[in-house]
Amino acid sequence: MNPDIMRERQNATFDVEKLTNILDRGPEKTKRRREIESLILSDPDFQEEDPNFLSRSERYDQAVRKSAQMILKLREYGIADPEEIYCYKNIARGNHHEAMGLHFAMFLPTLYSQCDPQQSRKWLPLAESYQVVGTYAQTELGHGTHLRGLETTATYDPATQEFVLNSPTVSSIKWWPGGLGKTSNHAIVLAQLYTQGNCHGLHAFIVPIRDMNTHVPLPGIVVGDIGPKFGFNEVDNGFLKLENVRISRENMLMKYAKVEPDGTYVKPPSAKLTYGTMVFIRSMIVGESARALAKSCTIAIRYSAVRHQSEIRPGEPEPQILDYQTQQYKLFPLLAMAYAFTFVGQYMTQTYQRINEGINEGDFSELPELHALSAGLKAFTTWATNSAIEVCRMSCGGHGYSRSSALPDIYVDFTPTCTYEGENTVMMLQTARYLVKSYGQVKAGHQLSGIVSYLNEADHRSVQPQPVAARPTVVDINDLTSLVEVYKLRAAILVELAAKSIQQELQRRKSQEDAWNNSAIDLVRASDAHCHYVVVKLFTDKLGEIGDTAIHSVMSTMALLYALHGITKNSGDFLQAGLLSVPQVLQISGRIKELLSQLRPNAVALVDAFDIPDKKMNSVLGRYDGNVYENLFEWARRSPLNSTEVHESYHKYLKPLRSKL
Amino acid sequence: MNPDIMRERQNATFDVEKLTNILDRGPEKTKRRREIESLILSDPDFQEEDPNFLSRSERYDQAVRKSAQMILKLREYGIADPEEIYCYKNIARGNHHEAMGLHFAMFLPTLYSQCDPQQSRKWLPLAESYQVVGTYAQTELGHGTHLRGLETTATYDPATQEFVLNSPTVSSIKWWPGGLGKTSNHAIVLAQLYTQGNCHGLHAFIVPIRDMNTHVPLPGIVVGDIGPKFGFNEVDNGFLKLENVRISRENMLMKYAKVEPDGTYVKPPSAKLTYGTMVFIRSMIVGESARALAKSCTIAIRYSAVRHQSEIRPGEPEPQILDYQTQQYKLFPLLAMAYAFTFVGQYMTQTYQRINEGINEGDFSELPELHALSAGLKAFTTWATNSAIEVCRMSCGGHGYSRSSALPDIYVDFTPTCTYEGENTVMMLQTARYLVKSYGQVKAGHQLSGIVSYLNEADHRSVQPQPVAARPTVVDINDLTSLVEVYKLRAAILVELAAKSIQQELQRRKSQEDAWNNSAIDLVRASDAHCHYVVVKLFTDKLGEIGDTAIHSVMSTMALLYALHGITKNSGDFLQAGLLSVPQVLQISGRIKELLSQLRPNAVALVDAFDIPDKKMNSVLGRYDGNVYENLFEWARRSPLNSTEVHESYHKYLKPLRSKL
Repeated sequence: MNPDIMRERQNATFDVEKLTNILDRGPEKTKRRREIESLILSDPDFQEEDPNFLSRSERYDQAVRKSAQMILKLREYGIADPEEIYCYKNIARGNHHEAMGLHFAMFLPTLYSQCDPQQSRKWLPLAESYQVVGTYAQTELGHGTHLRGLETTATYDPATQEFVLNSPTVSSIKWWPGGLGKTSNHAIVLAQLYTQGNCHGLHAFIVPIRDMNTHVPLPGIVVGDIGPKFGFNEVDNGFLKLENVRISRENMLMKYAKVEPDGTYVKPPSAKLTYGTMVFIRSMIVGESARALAKSCTIAIRYSAVRHQSEIRPGEPEPQILDYQTQQYKLFPLLAMAYAFTFVGQYMTQTYQRINEGINEGDFSELPELHALSAGLKAFTTWATNSAIEVCRMSCGGHGYSRSSALPDIYVDFTPTCTYEGENTVMMLQTARYLVKSYGQVKAGHQLSGIVSYLNEADHRSVQPQPVAARPTVVDINDLTSLVEVYKLRAAILVELAAKSIQQELQRRKSQEDAWNNSAIDLVRASDAHCHYVVVKLFTDKLGEIGDTAIHSVMSTMALLYALHGITKNSGDFLQAGLLSVPQVLQISGRIKELLSQLRPNAVALVDAFDIPDKKMNSVLGRYDGNVYENLFEWARRSPLNSTEVHESYHKYLKPLRSKL
Repeated sequence: MNPDIMRERQNATFDVEKLTNILDRGPEKTKRRREIESLILSDPDFQEEDPNFLSRSERYDQAVRKSAQMILKLREYGIADPEEIYCYKNIARGNHHEAMGLHFAMFLPTLYSQCDPQQSRKWLPLAESYQVVGTYAQTELGHGTHLRGLETTATYDPATQEFVLNSPTVSSIKWWPGGLGKTSNHAIVLAQLYTQGNCHGLHAFIVPIRDMNTHVPLPGIVVGDIGPKFGFNEVDNGFLKLENVRISRENMLMKYAKVEPDGTYVKPPSAKLTYGTMVFIRSMIVGESARALAKSCTIAIRYSAVRHQSEIRPGEPEPQILDYQTQQYKLFPLLAMAYAFTFVGQYMTQTYQRINEGINEGDFSELPELHALSAGLKAFTTWATNSAIEVCRMSCGGHGYSRSSALPDIYVDFTPTCTYEGENTVMMLQTARYLVKSYGQVKAGHQLSGIVSYLNEADHRSVQPQPVAARPTVVDINDLTSLVEVYKLRAAILVELAAKSIQQELQRRKSQEDAWNNSAIDLVRASDAHCHYVVVKLFTDKLGEIGDTAIHSVMSTMALLYALHGITKNSGDFLQAGLLSVPQVLQISGRIKELLSQLRPNAVALVDAFDIPDKKMNSVLGRYDGNVYENLFEWARRSPLNSTEVHESYHKYLKPLRSKL
C-alpha cells in the first residue's frame, strides 16, 4: 500500500466500518452486500477486458454476454430479492450498462402491470424465459417530454381484428429505447389509438419486431441502432419505423383500457395508475446521484492524497495536493454533498415504499407531494452531481482526462439522468407548479401539511424582502437547526417572488400560460431553493439517528459544511431576502475554511466508508491501495494502439510523405 | 431549408454579413477566409468518414493521413501565412486534432528559438522535410505544473562527450506529449542537467526515439501510447521511458545555456526568454474558448429554433423551444459570452503582438502584466466555456447526447484547456499574486498604470465593505459604463479582501507560504472578479468601434445582458460590497427578462454571423438548413452497428441462453 494513503487511514478519528454500516442501514446489510459482491469479484467469468480498449461492437458484444451470464448466475445462486439483484448487477456492470436493461426495467414491469389475465398467461412465460426479449418504445425522433405530441398511430381494423401501426412522418420514428437496435425481438410501442374514426390518445401495444428464431427484422419493421453517443455505447439504443405493421387485437395491453372486437373503445378507470412508476424511477435517480458522486469523490480524494505537486514552503518536499486549500474547497463540499444525497436517497426510497403501500390500498393522498418532491429532487441532485463529477475529474489534473481514471466514464454514464425520465428544467417547473399552487392555497386561507407546510407562514410575513436592519439577526451560523430555518425562509421568499411574478404578468393582461412562461426563471429558482432546503433538512434530521459520538461529530461537520457552502454559493439570495447580514456572510467564509481544515484528516476515511470495491470503480487513480503510477503505466501498455510497435499509418502516409516533398 | 429557421432569418434586425465582417476584422478577411475554407470544402480528399464511426486505431490512421495531406496541399496552394495556415487546418480538422500537431506547435518553434547556428543548420532542414518528426516531452507521470519537480536526468559524460538520459523512477516517465506514442521519431526532452557533479536544473535535449528508416524504437527507449482518453483519441499522446540513452553533446539545445566538451556549464543570459511562448499560447486559448462557445451556441440555438415541444397555450401547436423563457435564459447569456470572449480574444492577440514587438527590442516592461492577464483570462474563459458547452448540449435534450450533435466532441476536445498550459486554479493564483503585489505597491505609495490602475483608488476607499445606505446609489443598470465601474469596484474590494486575509494569517504567526495557502479561496475569487471586470470592460470598449447602427444596437444589448447576467450570478458579491441595493438586484432580474425577449428575434442571425461552415461543426443538430430529423435518421443508418441486420452476439449468447434455462 502507498505510504501516504496508509498514513491518512491511521489519522482518521472515527471507525470507518461503523459509518459503512450506517450507509448500508445495518451491519447485516453490509455483510450481505459484501457476500453478493464477492460472487462477482471471485468469478473468472467476470474478469473481462476494460471496455475502454474495445470497439463499439465489441463493447456491445461484451455487454450482451454479461447480461446472459448474469441471468444464469443469479438463478444458480438463487438470488431473487430485487435489492440483492440490484447489488449483484451493480458490481457486474461497473461504470456501464446492461444490454438487456430495459427488458427488466420497463418491458417486464409493464407486462406485469398492464396485461389482462389472458395476456399475462401468454406473454409472461415467454418474457421470463427470454424467448421474448423486449423494450419500451415511447420517445420519438421529434417528441420527448410532451406525450400528447407523439405521432405513432395504431388504427384498429375490425375486419381482421388487427391494429395497423404506422410511423407517419420522419419525426414519428421511435428513437432512443435501450436494447431496441439489436437486442430485442419485441417492443411495447406507445401509439395514438384510432378506432371507429376517433383518436383515444396514447396506448401501449406489444409489437413483434424480429423473428423469434432467426432474429431478422419482420416485414414492415425498419429497426436499427441510433449510432454512437457520448456514453452508453455498450447499449444499442435504437430506432423503429413502422410501415403498416399489423398486430392482433390481443396485442394491445388491456388491463385498463380496451378495444372490443367490433372496435368499441372502453376507457380506463383512472389515469393515476401509471403515475407511480415515474415517481419511483425519479426517486431512484436521487440515489444514483449519490452513488455517482460517492465514486467520483473516492477517486479524486484518494488520488489527491497520493499525488504530490508544487510547493507550499520553498525547499520542502512537494506536498500532497489534498493539503492545498483550493483542492479542499473543490472536493470537501462535494464529499459533504455525496453524504447529503445518500441520506436523501434513502429517505426517498423509504417514503416511496410507505406511500406505495397506501396506493395499493387506494390512498393516493400523498402522491402529489411525492411527485413534486421526486421531480424537483431528481433535477436538483442530478444537476449538482453532473457538475460535481467534472470538478472531481479536473481536480485530478491531466490524469483525470485519461479513461484509466474512470471519471470520463462515470460522467458520460451519469449525465443523461439530467435529461431522461423528465428533463430537469421541466421537472423543476413541475415542482414549482406544486409550490405555487400550495402558496395559493395558503393565500386562500387553507392550512398546508407536509413538506410545504412552511408556506403557511407566508401569510404572516412581510411580502417584500426586508433590509437586514429590519430583521432580528438570530441566525447562529454554527447551529444546523438555525440554518435549516434560514434555508426554509429563503425557499418561502422565492416561492412568493415567483407567485408575485405570475400575478404581475396577469395584471399586464397576459394569459395564464404566458404569465407562467414569463415567470419561468423565478419558478425554477423557487424550486431549486425548495429542494436545497429539503436536502439540508434531511441531512440535519439524519444526524439525530447517529449514535456513535465520533461519527456524529464528523457527520455534523459535513452537514455544516454542506449548509454553509450552499449559503456562500447563493449568498445573493440570503442577503437579498435580509436573512443574513453582510458580516455574517463574511463569517461564514471564514468558518468554511476552518471546517475544511477540520475535515482534512478524515477525508480518505470518509470516502473509504462508501466501501466501493476497486472493480466497481475501475479507476487506476481511485485504487484502494493508492499505487497509482505503476498501474497507470501498466494500463497504458495494454492500450490497443500498443499492440504493434510501428503503426501501419507510418508506412502508408509518413514515410511516403518525405519523397513527395 | 426548414421553414422555421428561414423565418428566423427573415426576422433579423441587422445585416448578418456586416457582423461577420466585424468578427473577421474586415470584409477582405472574410473573403480570404472563405476562399481558404472552400479549398477544403471542395476537396474530395477531405470527404472522410465521421470519426465517431471509427475505432481508435482507424481514427489515428485518418488523422495521420490528414496531417500528411495538409502538408502537401498547403505547399501546393502556396499558403504560408500562419493565420491562413491556421484557418485551413481549422476547417480540415473539424472538432478533432492534428496527429502531428506538436511538431508544428512545439517541436519546430523550440528548434527555431533554442538551436545555436550549427544546430539550426543540422536540424531545421530535417524537421522541415519531415525526415525528423518531433514532439516536446516535458510533463512526467508524477509531475506537471511544478517544473523543478521533474525527475528525468541528463548526465554529461566527458569521456564520450555524451549525455546519458534516464527515467530514474516510474513517476519520471514522460507522459502526455502529443505525437509521442506512435508518430514522432524525435523528441525534445526536458531533463535535469547534471555535469561535473552538479545539477543545473531543466534543459532541453533532442533525443532520437525511433529509427529514421524503420520507425522501430531505438535501444533504451520504451515508448508507446498512453491509452484512450476522454477525447483527443485521434492523437497518440505518449509515454517515454529512457534507460541509459546516450546522445551527443550537440543534442543539447545550446543557444543560451551550454555544456563545454569538458563538462563546464555555461549559464543562459536571462530567464525571461522562455516566458513569451507560454503567454502566447495562453492568449491563444482565450480565442479557442470563444470559438468553441460560438460553435456550441450555433448548434443549440439553431436546433432550438427547429425543435418544437410541449405547449405554452393549450390546444395550440407545440412552440419552438426557443420560445421558452428558460431556454432563452440558458442560451442567450452564453451567446453574449461567446461575443464577449471573441472580442477579448482579439484584444489578447493584438496586445500580445504589440508587446512582443517590444520584447524583440529588449523591452520586457509590459510582460508581467500580460503574463498575469493571460493566465487569469485563460482560466476564466476556459472554465466558463467548459460549463457553457455542457449547458448547450443539455439544452438540446436527448439528441444533444448523440455524437451526431457534435456537442460531445466539442466538449471532450475543449475541456483539457482547463488543465493544460497551466492548470486553471494555478493560473488564477498566478494572477492573484500579481494583483496582491500591485495592491501592496499602492499601499506603499506607488501609482499603478495599466489594467490594475483601478487599485490606485484602494487607498482612498474605506476598507470594509459598506452597507448600501452609506453609499450614494449612482449605478445606472442600463448604462454599460456604470456597470463597468461596478465590476471594477467589486474586483478592487475582493483584491483587498484577499490581501487582508493574508495579513490576518501573518498576524497569527503563519509563515508567508501558509498565509498564502490559507487565503487561496479568497485569492481565486479576487482573480475571478478581476477577469470578469476585464471582460465586461473590453466588450464595452469594443462597442465604440462598431459604426453600423443596427449592429451597434444588438451588440449593446448583448453586452448589457452579459454584464447584468454576471451580476445576478454573483449578486452576493455586489450586495456584500454595498455596490448595489436589493431593489436594484430585483430590477436587474426584471431587466434580464426584457433583454431575452429583445434578443429572441435575432438569436439565429447572431449565431449565423459566426459563419461556421457545416463541415467544420459536423453537427446534425446545428445544420445551417435546419433539416435535422431526416439527417439524424440518415446518420444513424450509417452507424457501424447497423452494418449487419443480426449482430453476432445473438447467435453467441442470446439464442443459447434460452436452452440453458
